[in-house]
Amino acid sequence: MIKAAIVGATGYTGSELVRLLYNHPDVDIKMITSESRKGESFSAVHPQFSDIVEHELQPAAAVLEAELDVVFLALPHGVSMDYVKQYESTNFNIIDLSGDFRLSAPAVYEDWYNKTHTYAVGFDRATYGLPELHRDAIRQSSLVANPGCYPTSAILGLSPLVEADLIVPGQIIVDAKSGITGAGIKAKPTTHYSNVSDNFKAYGLKSHRHTVEIQEQLSGLHATPINVQFTPHLLPVDRGILSTIYTQPQRETSEAEIRTLYEDFYASHPFVRIRKTPPSLKDVRGSNYCDVYVTYDDRTNRIITLAAIDNLVKGAAGQAMQNMNLQFELEETRGFVSLPLNP
Amino acid sequence: MIKAAIVGATGYTGSELVRLLYNHPDVDIKMITSESRKGESFSAVHPQFSDIVEHELQPAAAVLEAELDVVFLALPHGVSMDYVKQYESTNFNIIDLSGDFRLSAPAVYEDWYNKTHTYAVGFDRATYGLPELHRDAIRQSSLVANPGCYPTSAILGLSPLVEADLIVPGQIIVDAKSGITGAGIKAKPTTHYSNVSDNFKAYGLKSHRHTVEIQEQLSGLHATPINVQFTPHLLPVDRGILSTIYTQPQRETSEAEIRTLYEDFYASHPFVRIRKTPPSLKDVRGSNYCDVYVTYDDRTNRIITLAAIDNLVKGAAGQAMQNMNLQFELEETRGFVSLPLNP
Amino acid sequence: MIKAAIVGATGYTGSELVRLLYNHPDVDIKMITSESRKGESFSAVHPQFSDIVEHELQPAAAVLEAELDVVFLALPHGVSMDYVKQYESTNFNIIDLSGDFRLSAPAVYEDWYNKTHTYAVGFDRATYGLPELHRDAIRQSSLVANPGCYPTSAILGLSPLVEADLIVPGQIIVDAKSGITGAGIKAKPTTHYSNVSDNFKAYGLKSHRHTVEIQEQLSGLHATPINVQFTPHLLPVDRGILSTIYTQPQRETSEAEIRTLYEDFYASHPFVRIRKTPPSLKDVRGSNYCDVYVTYDDRTNRIITLAAIDNLVKGAAGQAMQNMNLQFELEETRGFVSLPLNP
Amino acid sequence: MIKAAIVGATGYTGSELVRLLYNHPDVDIKMITSESRKGESFSAVHPQFSDIVEHELQPAAAVLEAELDVVFLALPHGVSMDYVKQYESTNFNIIDLSGDFRLSAPAVYEDWYNKTHTYAVGFDRATYGLPELHRDAIRQSSLVANPGCYPTSAILGLSPLVEADLIVPGQIIVDAKSGITGAGIKAKPTTHYSNVSDNFKAYGLKSHRHTVEIQEQLSGLHATPINVQFTPHLLPVDRGILSTIYTQPQRETSEAEIRTLYEDFYASHPFVRIRKTPPSLKDVRGSNYCDVYVTYDDRTNRIITLAAIDNLVKGAAGQAMQNMNLQFELEETRGFVSLPLNP
Repeated sequence: MIKAAIVGATGYTGSELVRLLYNHPDVDIKMITSESRKGESFSAVHPQFSDIVEHELQPAAAVLEAELDVVFLALPHGVSMDYVKQYESTNFNIIDLSGDFRLSAPAVYEDWYNKTHTYAVGFDRATYGLPELHRDAIRQSSLVANPGCYPTSAILGLSPLVEADLIVPGQIIVDAKSGITGAGIKAKPTTHYSNVSDNFKAYGLKSHRHTVEIQEQLSGLHATPINVQFTPHLLPVDRGILSTIYTQPQRETSEAEIRTLYEDFYASHPFVRIRKTPPSLKDVRGSNYCDVYVTYDDRTNRIITLAAIDNLVKGAAGQAMQNMNLQFELEETRGFVSLPLNP
Repeated sequence: MIKAAIVGATGYTGSELVRLLYNHPDVDIKMITSESRKGESFSAVHPQFSDIVEHELQPAAAVLEAELDVVFLALPHGVSMDYVKQYESTNFNIIDLSGDFRLSAPAVYEDWYNKTHTYAVGFDRATYGLPELHRDAIRQSSLVANPGCYPTSAILGLSPLVEADLIVPGQIIVDAKSGITGAGIKAKPTTHYSNVSDNFKAYGLKSHRHTVEIQEQLSGLHATPINVQFTPHLLPVDRGILSTIYTQPQRETSEAEIRTLYEDFYASHPFVRIRKTPPSLKDVRGSNYCDVYVTYDDRTNRIITLAAIDNLVKGAAGQAMQNMNLQFELEETRGFVSLPLNP
Repeated sequence: MIKAAIVGATGYTGSELVRLLYNHPDVDIKMITSESRKGESFSAVHPQFSDIVEHELQPAAAVLEAELDVVFLALPHGVSMDYVKQYESTNFNIIDLSGDFRLSAPAVYEDWYNKTHTYAVGFDRATYGLPELHRDAIRQSSLVANPGCYPTSAILGLSPLVEADLIVPGQIIVDAKSGITGAGIKAKPTTHYSNVSDNFKAYGLKSHRHTVEIQEQLSGLHATPINVQFTPHLLPVDRGILSTIYTQPQRETSEAEIRTLYEDFYASHPFVRIRKTPPSLKDVRGSNYCDVYVTYDDRTNRIITLAAIDNLVKGAAGQAMQNMNLQFELEETRGFVSLPLNP
Repeated sequence: MIKAAIVGATGYTGSELVRLLYNHPDVDIKMITSESRKGESFSAVHPQFSDIVEHELQPAAAVLEAELDVVFLALPHGVSMDYVKQYESTNFNIIDLSGDFRLSAPAVYEDWYNKTHTYAVGFDRATYGLPELHRDAIRQSSLVANPGCYPTSAILGLSPLVEADLIVPGQIIVDAKSGITGAGIKAKPTTHYSNVSDNFKAYGLKSHRHTVEIQEQLSGLHATPINVQFTPHLLPVDRGILSTIYTQPQRETSEAEIRTLYEDFYASHPFVRIRKTPPSLKDVRGSNYCDVYVTYDDRTNRIITLAAIDNLVKGAAGQAMQNMNLQFELEETRGFVSLPLNP
């Protein structure tokens, strides 16, 4: 059994990790921590787990005293880096769900996060945890930087086109729409029901941090740097991201060719489904699937790609468990029993 | 392996049965039928199952030719009875999710459903499939009448009080609120998004069919007949029923006594959780739990009970699988891996 | 022109007052105040008013220096009383939308609000501002205590029955369901989108403050005290309250008699609509109507009354403007141009 | 008084026309028609109008016998053309809310609507009813083709850029998101609550009819034809469209220059608000405003424009009333009393 701890379990990512790991036949959830609610039971914070998961919440420091194989950090960016540093000489694997080690270098981080990075050396150790691009590296890594939710959908939607050098590198637009859980469990005006319900808006125009994460990963697939226009929007839904992606082929192509490109690219990747019709968010809700649809518009010579995920699963906790499976040499799909919940 | 068929899989109950049975380690889904969509793949009707469940939909008649252990009827009331009749001489068990065999006699059915019953003899064979009341009978039964969604929540909320003869039999009010999936997958004005969203209303006042189902089951626990005022409402949510139940003790009592009554009554029933705080619908969403909260108001001498379920799971497909487990001498919880999805 | 000020305009009640008063042909909105956002424009707080209402937000103290005819207090309970005290020797009318002066006496207030009242003398001056019960008194009053949202729907639903002495005084159950704006604009776990959306729960069982407000007003219509069981629930909607009310006749009656009772009671009250079918929340959304439906169940000898309002309009700002119309000897409907918005 | 009739009042556009015209001081709603519900009262179909608008629904033929100044056609495309033909020799103005006369020629119509046009001569008479582009022509027109909802937001968002010849004509992407009322009142799988709620998807990729409407109107502002990539999405909201528009300047520019361009273009247009922050749908809900926000991204050399409307008001009934005001030489804002309803 893999002995696992979840650090920072009061948020949605934390509770989602517990939901998924609970059903993993090879995982034993040894410890769940929370600074703000320590001493309380996990189900006092997340009552859906009543009588199911009744762990007493520990202080994060307890992790250092326990025997563990893997620690999931479900912490805000800027906080996570200190924990990774503190765990430097431990033996367990770390899967960090924050943004602290996703980028290529501290300087890039500081540019886009407006924050000094306190553990630069972590960047050398960290592997970007998108299994569809970095499966082998993740298998070798003891520190996985779990991807952001928007980047997961955008990169999975764009990788086949970029790797095949099919599209104009400067003509990539990602118009993304996310459910509100992406904004976290904290009560703030942004997450007030009446600001979200029956409403819709764009935010973070031109400057959202996930832009650089998308660009860096795509640039890794291409001879020249990739530039992306990324615009996030806030949907009145709990879970789910749909990215509508516009690109331009730089040579003659066809719907059939592009479709084959995607099918081949993801042939060995069980969580990407190439769909024949545009996916809706509920098709993936609660599951680790990324549903991708691609079409070519010969009237405008543009490719339109749609990529849908559950931001808390493939965009966070599910991808983390997928990464753990890789680290521990298990089947990538091991333990994933939660089918999409629709409706 | 239990060879199972699902008859009538285009609705929500059908797709939910597939979602649950798919993860049951002892079940093999042999056949899925649909008259209106036969020949198509199951995932063409319910795209969330793409690449997961790709059975070709069969005509219902195919059931008679197949080797099966259990058949789930996910059909409208009035239709189901004909299938049960048609399957009379087969060897498989039947779990009927319609209302056709839930009541005590054809005459009662005809009274409340305004419809002639075409298979009166089925009533002798049928067992009311609420495991918390009829576990042993279900184990022996080859025809289970799976309870209605509202009755499941109301009966589970009221049974401890009625069986203990604690409350005035004529003073029972069930004010119930249900998500829209209870109205089925069919598009009609009632289910139009703009009639439901940001909206709320009562319906079926005084005359809803589930009234008699609740009354009959409760009367079975009591020396004298039980009368119930039942008022359903339509919530702008997909899944879930919350019943708020008002009763009056007929002797002195206390919160502690009542709470113990509930805990004892459900001590051996794994899917009823006696909660210490009022449950919300998302605490049970996607799961087979019925969350019950009870409190006593000494200012008014009333007991208030809250009972929450997912109408598609404990109120339909989950309860059906629970009944199947009993019929096939499995652990009652066998195969239930879906934890509540919240948020 | 009536010179009006709105004190405390950052909340929903404040913005709703502005929305309604803006269209009143006899009102001039002279001043809008906010302590937390003073100096900013009103539309910076409520962007829907961009280019329409651009008043600079003033400190509340400015009210004392201005020439005003009426001041609306859109403040939390416990805060309002201090303002009423401070305005003691002014000439303007006050319409207080908090709970501070709705009850009969400071002692009752302190019992149910767990708070010392700092301006006991205000109780002598205050009139309970439900025009359908106290129209004449409101016309004479310079301090109107605007009713609570739940009480408005419950009292309007029950008054005809209580005044006619038709029902058993100890057998009144109000099962009420409210949209989230009733919880205010402040971001807190209760108002987080993901706690509300696709969800539903009861709260404040046995002890909600509005219980006593309902009881006192109904007792004023009856020879003996009225006792009420009041249970509020939280709906995933922005606006609206539906109260489902159960009562028991204490003598023989009929649906026709009861219906006539309601029609007569509200014959001269333009904002109460006696409906022939159960109302839904969107039938009144954005408007000052209270839609009432009543039916008699001879099977159980119970009366069921449904009363629907928009909690921000008839349950708050609209009722306040209706009260202002009475105070200033205008038509009760004067200035109400906002028809129900459905969908 | 302007004597008005609304033909086809069972849908959302019809009820919205009544909601708006009811408050217009110069309009008398003489007649409301419906083939499917004739003989019933208007409020039986739309209960929010109980006791307010109780017109008996007439057959459409009655229009020919009445004395009328203006007739609003709230009919599906393909149906409307027959009515316009039938009304050929009448004296009243027609405002047609369908798509039947919005395009430049019958051939274009037949191409994009896959339908033969039965009244080609109507194209000569019809004026495209977007007041911000065609105010003077509308004043002279007796047949106004009211714009589509998506086109209204897209054209208003793009016109300043196109007219100034600032952007590359072949690089225009309109990623639009609409509430479900855009799909009409008819119950169909698309409008089923559980397909919409907590969900999101794209549809009509590459081929939506509004594409050509947008292109034709923009081309009218430019020396060369304008090509548009238009992708609609379905939001889980009742009302509202947000278009996120991506364009590329073809010469050096700046945020300040572009902003001034928009402010100047709309200086005399009261229903377009140039916002300083990204608008949300609730900022315009229930009102006739189009809120526009524009920004320039120098990192990518792209302009991003956001345009938000209520699809039933500025996208349909409100724009129709605005057009009527122009036809009858009234102030463009005359009769518009409904402020945005938020929340």
